[in-house]
Amino acid sequence: MGLFNRAKDEGFFEQLTEIANNLIEGTDILAKLMSLPTAQRDGVRNDLHAVENSSDDLTHEFMNKINQTFVTPLDRDDLSELAYRLDDCMDLVDEAGNLIVVYQLQEIPECLHKQAAILQKCAKVTASAMPRLKTLDELREYWVEVNRLENQADQIYMHCLSDIVNHNPDPIAVIKLKDVTERLEDACDAFEHLAALVEGIAIKES
Amino acid sequence: MGLFNRAKDEGFFEQLTEIANNLIEGTDILAKLMSLPTAQRDGVRNDLHAVENSSDDLTHEFMNKINQTFVTPLDRDDLSELAYRLDDCMDLVDEAGNLIVVYQLQEIPECLHKQAAILQKCAKVTASAMPRLKTLDELREYWVEVNRLENQADQIYMHCLSDIVNHNPDPIAVIKLKDVTERLEDACDAFEHLAALVEGIAIKES
Amino acid sequence: MGLFNRAKDEGFFEQLTEIANNLIEGTDILAKLMSLPTAQRDGVRNDLHAVENSSDDLTHEFMNKINQTFVTPLDRDDLSELAYRLDDCMDLVDEAGNLIVVYQLQEIPECLHKQAAILQKCAKVTASAMPRLKTLDELREYWVEVNRLENQADQIYMHCLSDIVNHNPDPIAVIKLKDVTERLEDACDAFEHLAALVEGIAIKES
Repeated sequence: MGLFNRAKDEGFFEQLTEIANNLIEGTDILAKLMSLPTAQRDGVRNDLHAVENSSDDLTHEFMNKINQTFVTPLDRDDLSELAYRLDDCMDLVDEAGNLIVVYQLQEIPECLHKQAAILQKCAKVTASAMPRLKTLDELREYWVEVNRLENQADQIYMHCLSDIVNHNPDPIAVIKLKDVTERLEDACDAFEHLAALVEGIAIKES
Repeated sequence: MGLFNRAKDEGFFEQLTEIANNLIEGTDILAKLMSLPTAQRDGVRNDLHAVENSSDDLTHEFMNKINQTFVTPLDRDDLSELAYRLDDCMDLVDEAGNLIVVYQLQEIPECLHKQAAILQKCAKVTASAMPRLKTLDELREYWVEVNRLENQADQIYMHCLSDIVNHNPDPIAVIKLKDVTERLEDACDAFEHLAALVEGIAIKES
Repeated sequence: MGLFNRAKDEGFFEQLTEIANNLIEGTDILAKLMSLPTAQRDGVRNDLHAVENSSDDLTHEFMNKINQTFVTPLDRDDLSELAYRLDDCMDLVDEAGNLIVVYQLQEIPECLHKQAAILQKCAKVTASAMPRLKTLDELREYWVEVNRLENQADQIYMHCLSDIVNHNPDPIAVIKLKDVTERLEDACDAFEHLAALVEGIAIKES
C-alpha cells in the first residue's frame, strides 16, 4: 500500500543480493559438475555444498536480523518469505547435484543439461533483480523473464521425462534419472515461486 | 473476529467461484481422458491444459486485485491463500492428466478411476461452497464432506499403491502408475488443504 | 518484539506439548514396527494410526481455539504455524510406517533403523521444548540439538540412498525402500522446520 513510512534499509537488500549471487555460483557449479566424468564429480559436489552452506548462514543471519529489527523496509513476512524462497532454490540445486553424485550417473542425457542451463539463466536474472527491490523499480522484466524461462523449462522437462521413462530398458537407470530431472524441475519451479512473490510485493507496495 | 468493518465485496467471491468452477471442468476432463484409449488422449490433455491456463490467468488477476485493493472483504492473506490453494488443486489435476499422456499408459487400473471420481466430487462441493464465503453461512457441510471424501480417497490410494507395487512384475510400469496414483492423491490432499483453510476462516470471522 | 501485552496463556502451550508428546509415542511405535517381522506389523501400524488420529483431533481443537481467541499468547500466525508443523512431523512418521506395511517390506536395512532412531530423539527434544515456549527461556539448546540431529540424519540418508539404489539388483525393492528412506528423511526435515520456526519466534519475542 505504501501508506506507512518504511524504515531505511539497513543492508537487507544487500544481503538478499548476496544470497542470490550464491545462486549464480551454485547453478554454475551444478552445470560444471554435470559436464564432468563420473569420477571427477566428487570435489565439485563439495564446492556446491560449500556454497549451499554459505547461503544457509547468510539466510540465518538475515532471518535473525528481520526478527530483531523493529521497522523493516518491507513487510517482515515478505522479507522472510523472500529469504525462504531463495533458500529453496539453493537447496534444490544442491540436491540435484548431490543426487547425480550419489547415483553415480554415467552418461547424463542432453535434456538434463538443458534444464541446468535454464537454472543458470534463472539465477542470473534473479540476482540482478534483488537490488531493485530497494526502489521497487523495473522489476517487471524480471518476473516476466523468469516466467518465460519456467515455461521453456516445463517443455524440456516433459521431453526429459518421456525420454527417460519410455525409452530406457533399465529400470534402475529410470529411477535415478527421473529423480534428477524432477529435482531440476523443482528448482526451476522454486525460481518461479520467488518471482511470483516479488511480483506480489511490487504491486502491493506501488 | 468479525470486529472490523469489511469492505464491500467487489467481485472477489465471484472470481474465486469462477476459479473453482474450472476445477469441475478440469476434473471432468481428467476422468474423460482416463477413460479413452491411449491414442485419443492427446487432444483431451490439451483441453485440460487450456483449463489450467485459464485458471492461472484468473488467479493472477485475482492476486493483483488483492494487492491493489486497500480494504478487502476478508483478510488479504486469507484471500490470497484461498486462491493459492485452489491453484494447487488445478495444478495437480493437470499434472496427473499430463503424466498419463507422457507415460503413454495402456490399461489404467480401476482404482485410479476411483481416485479421479473422488476428485470430481471434491471439485463440485468446493465450487458450490465458494459463493457462500461471502456470507460465511452454511460452509460447515462443505468441509465435512471434503474431509469425508479425502478419508475415502486415502483408503483407495492405499489399495492402488499396494496393487501397483506388490502385484506388478514390470518395474517401469510400477514407476509410471505409482507416479499417477500419487499425483491423484496429492490433488485430493490439496482439496482437503483448501477446506481446512475455509474452516479456519469461517471460525475466525464468525 | 515483546512490546505488546500478551494474553495469559489459556492452555495453548499445554496443548502443543500434548501434540508433541504424541510424536514421542509415534516415533517409538515406528521404531517398534520396523523391528518386527513382516507378519506382525499390521497391528502396530494401527496403533500408529491411532496416535496420528489423536494428534489430528488435538490439532483441530487447537486451531479452532486460536481462531476463537481474541488475544493469543503468541502471534496467532505463529501459534497456528507451530501446530501445523507439529502435524507435519506426525503425518510423515505415520506415512513412513504405513508404507513399510503396504509394501510388505521383508528385511529392513540397518540405515533405515538409524533414521528412525534419530526421529525418536527429535521427538523427545521437541516435546521437552514445547512447554518452554511459555516463557521463551532456554529454547536455544533445543534448536541447536535438532539441527545437529538433522545434519546427522542427512549423512545417514545419503548412505541409505546410495546403498538402496546402487547395490540392489531388484528394481521393485529399490522403489519400495527409496520411498521409505525418503519419507523418514522428510520427517526429520519436518522436525528441523519446526525448530527453525521456534528459533524465529524466540528471537522475535525476546
